[in-house]
Amino acid sequence: MANHAWSEKVLQLLRRMNNFYLPGSCRAVCSRFEIDRVQVGWIPPHVVSQLTRYPEVFKAPQDGVVSLCPSLDSYGRRSEAVDAMLRSMRQETSLRCLRGWRDEKYSVMPTFFDTPVMWMERAATSLFGVKRYGVHVNGYTVNESGEVSMWLARRSATKQTYPGLLDNMAAGGLAAGVTVKHTLVKECHEEACVPAALAEKARPVNTVSYTYEDEEGVFAESQFVFDLELPRDFKPTIGDGEVQDFCLLPIHNVKELLATDDFKPNSAMVVLDFLIRHSFIDPDTEPSYQELVTGLHQTLE
Amino acid sequence: MANHAWSEKVLQLLRRMNNFYLPGSCRAVCSRFEIDRVQVGWIPPHVVSQLTRYPEVFKAPQDGVVSLCPSLDSYGRRSEAVDAMLRSMRQETSLRCLRGWRDEKYSVMPTFFDTPVMWMERAATSLFGVKRYGVHVNGYTVNESGEVSMWLARRSATKQTYPGLLDNMAAGGLAAGVTVKHTLVKECHEEACVPAALAEKARPVNTVSYTYEDEEGVFAESQFVFDLELPRDFKPTIGDGEVQDFCLLPIHNVKELLATDDFKPNSAMVVLDFLIRHSFIDPDTEPSYQELVTGLHQTLE
Repeated sequence: MANHAWSEKVLQLLRRMNNFYLPGSCRAVCSRFEIDRVQVGWIPPHVVSQLTRYPEVFKAPQDGVVSLCPSLDSYGRRSEAVDAMLRSMRQETSLRCLRGWRDEKYSVMPTFFDTPVMWMERAATSLFGVKRYGVHVNGYTVNESGEVSMWLARRSATKQTYPGLLDNMAAGGLAAGVTVKHTLVKECHEEACVPAALAEKARPVNTVSYTYEDEEGVFAESQFVFDLELPRDFKPTIGDGEVQDFCLLPIHNVKELLATDDFKPNSAMVVLDFLIRHSFIDPDTEPSYQELVTGLHQTLE
Repeated sequence: MANHAWSEKVLQLLRRMNNFYLPGSCRAVCSRFEIDRVQVGWIPPHVVSQLTRYPEVFKAPQDGVVSLCPSLDSYGRRSEAVDAMLRSMRQETSLRCLRGWRDEKYSVMPTFFDTPVMWMERAATSLFGVKRYGVHVNGYTVNESGEVSMWLARRSATKQTYPGLLDNMAAGGLAAGVTVKHTLVKECHEEACVPAALAEKARPVNTVSYTYEDEEGVFAESQFVFDLELPRDFKPTIGDGEVQDFCLLPIHNVKELLATDDFKPNSAMVVLDFLIRHSFIDPDTEPSYQELVTGLHQTLE
């Protein structure tokens, strides 16, 4: 693919994954979700109107702010009241994302270094625009000549989200109270059968952050990125059935694939970050170099 | 230094280097500098009031926009008219930054991949908040045990900006019409006597972007970052006198120095990016990990 077409396609991906920042997004009409007067998310209008049916949990929206009833004054009370409400909502409403209920608790906190103020079911976080964190692992090899190849996963055709698309070797969301390293080792083991002793050699190298909206809600996410150089004779194998296949591709083929629609979008961003850090993109021949970098690191103030 | 104190100090640095984005910055009262109806900079009020004295160059400010007279309709005409005006202004006004005239032409363009619409004297770019690009090089060594040390420069005590502070091994601004690679090799040679054959092994790995304001103007900058692993027996030596000394420090000492006031601020950001990419910061023990990353990649829309 010509360089210009590649750049344009990848910039489009970055814009799509950051569409919440663009003029015309729902941001202007979202309510701020505040706990203890600190913002922890963004709630789209179609969700706000549903929440008014639960006055025992949410105060009436005021000045563009949605907050919990004052009696919900602890981590436990907030989490349980919202969870009960979501379980009821799941029965009664047509909010599609709640159909993907996962029984995974995510921490709700203003920023990653704040103490969590509650937990929330993973599937509901996008209704509240609550920031989610995850881990993505670039598994790669270097041959005798120094040539880099990358292991990619092909997602299972029956997976709820992005079925059949290409993905990083392993990835997963950060559940409440679990460390980044633990999540990394667990996902490497479960998804790709990477032994813990090998997965622990993965190196933390960056984050990739973005916020997009779709008809379901607001997805504000940061992924902790790890690089794991694998022995040449190691082959990841299917673990929990979330993956249908693994393939090892020369890095230049992986780069070409970024500009197709065959990649899970946030995983494509993680690969783009790998390409930049490993010098597979040259600032003198890639005029959008700086935009490619900054598109990987957008966060809401 | 305790981890928490280190993080807080480094986050302060990132906030200071991005203070143009903060509430209370001059951004709200700056005029947009437009050429051909496309914004290329931000002009603070104290500069706008000076420009009105040159009606042959600037149209009267309107709706918060400053633009050039319509007769200045080409790259050459714009550049020459503004340059003549700046040379006159330099004699007549008290704008301190013009005293630092460098005779270096910087490209003015909406983004790095657009065709430049004019050039401007480097010392004047902050008056117009025109985006500037540069190159910074991390020179480092790895010993037999895999331990990383970094070469730092101590800036000359007589240097116009940031005298006596620590800096990356080599760095320099990108002049109009010059490639990133050329600038890299030139600065490595001039500042640190690194032979071209060695400098050319430097690897492009990222950008670092930020916008700050001070009493002189608006500094919107992106630095192309390169890593250069040096042979253990190589020692950079003083070239053009911009540096008084080079020292090789274990990377953990370099990390500690980031939290002092001994570093040129944007060079400290380049080192922080190195620490992140080379896994010297751990997301499980550094709670501000994600904020450290995103603070390195802010850009004006």
